[in-house]
Amino acid sequence: MTGVFVTIEGPDGAGKTSAIKKLERMLKKNLQVDLIVTREPGGIPIAEKIRQIILDPKNMEMDERTEALLYAAARRQHLIEKILPALEKNTFVLCDRFVDSSLAYQGAGRKIGVEAVASINQFATEGLTPDLTLYLDVDPETGLNRIQKGRTQAELDRLDQESAVFHQRVQHEYLKLAEQFPERIVTINARKGLDQVVTECYQVIKQKYADKFHS
Amino acid sequence: MTGVFVTIEGPDGAGKTSAIKKLERMLKKNLQVDLIVTREPGGIPIAEKIRQIILDPKNMEMDERTEALLYAAARRQHLIEKILPALEKNTFVLCDRFVDSSLAYQGAGRKIGVEAVASINQFATEGLTPDLTLYLDVDPETGLNRIQKGRTQAELDRLDQESAVFHQRVQHEYLKLAEQFPERIVTINARKGLDQVVTECYQVIKQKYADKFHS
Repeated sequence: MTGVFVTIEGPDGAGKTSAIKKLERMLKKNLQVDLIVTREPGGIPIAEKIRQIILDPKNMEMDERTEALLYAAARRQHLIEKILPALEKNTFVLCDRFVDSSLAYQGAGRKIGVEAVASINQFATEGLTPDLTLYLDVDPETGLNRIQKGRTQAELDRLDQESAVFHQRVQHEYLKLAEQFPERIVTINARKGLDQVVTECYQVIKQKYADKFHS
Repeated sequence: MTGVFVTIEGPDGAGKTSAIKKLERMLKKNLQVDLIVTREPGGIPIAEKIRQIILDPKNMEMDERTEALLYAAARRQHLIEKILPALEKNTFVLCDRFVDSSLAYQGAGRKIGVEAVASINQFATEGLTPDLTLYLDVDPETGLNRIQKGRTQAELDRLDQESAVFHQRVQHEYLKLAEQFPERIVTINARKGLDQVVTECYQVIKQKYADKFHS
């Protein structure tokens, strides 16, 4: 495969969504190769149907392991139908969340266990790992404060249900992963302003994949 | 847990469905404890929705690993909502297919790999294993011949697509599992007539769980 697979990760309130929008514009202008920006379920019909089951508020009684298996199933189908075909065509793929999110949120946050969640994701990805992961690091206090400003009541309710301790476990696991995989994961301080964060992300990508950029 | 968890396994055409119906009547009459007979998705809303995705003929492009993860997710939810609560209430649970089916069909039949499929099912069940598995053994020729008599055209089409070699791999894996777990899996020769097969199943259960039966 000749493409490049970059993922963006981070806790709630890290500013991922805004950063990706700006980053997409900069990359589109300066990359020599095609770019796709995606996130699960990514418009893949089977993955969309799976996500509908996960997100249906009527499914209150969903077990956490069932949910983790469904996330892995949606990830698999998104990978097979969208990411892998793009990588095979030399495309630059920027993906909003991937396996690390499941390790941090389901494995550590929901306490299923990081190794157990890693094992079903290993099955889903057959070991395909991003070439580069930009981890936007933010502490739970800063992150949750940001979120309270921009979110709807329903979203706030969900976040309230998940305690501060949950979000601490999520951040802690991300930091552990960054320590564990220093070659792949680059930590960006996301307490800084959006423009600064985006510039840093862009520089990391450009430095690593200079050959894919216009001079 | 004080209940008993018995599964029935076997390749297509082993006569599982008919055997279970007769076995249910015999057990109901003679067991001292409550009995439930179930199979995934078992009327569990979340599991039913997952099965709809698996079985939707529009989802032609479903990857085999996505499918295996969805089976594991439906299994998990069925286990949590139906099997475990029954076992906790001293109920005798007879379940039509469980993990062994995924090992035989997805792992060996579809060639995903038995160990890989075992790992996601280990995640789904947290290692809960049936107390007893009755494996109705039948060779593919006999099994597929039986099926051709009783099935609709749509079912026959699906079976035709799966080659004889596929069904050989399924039976071979079942036999391997029976060899590997002789304490749990009892092989019943299902080339015999239905009444004979049911009688043997009943005898195996009664011998092992004599204390659960009326004298």
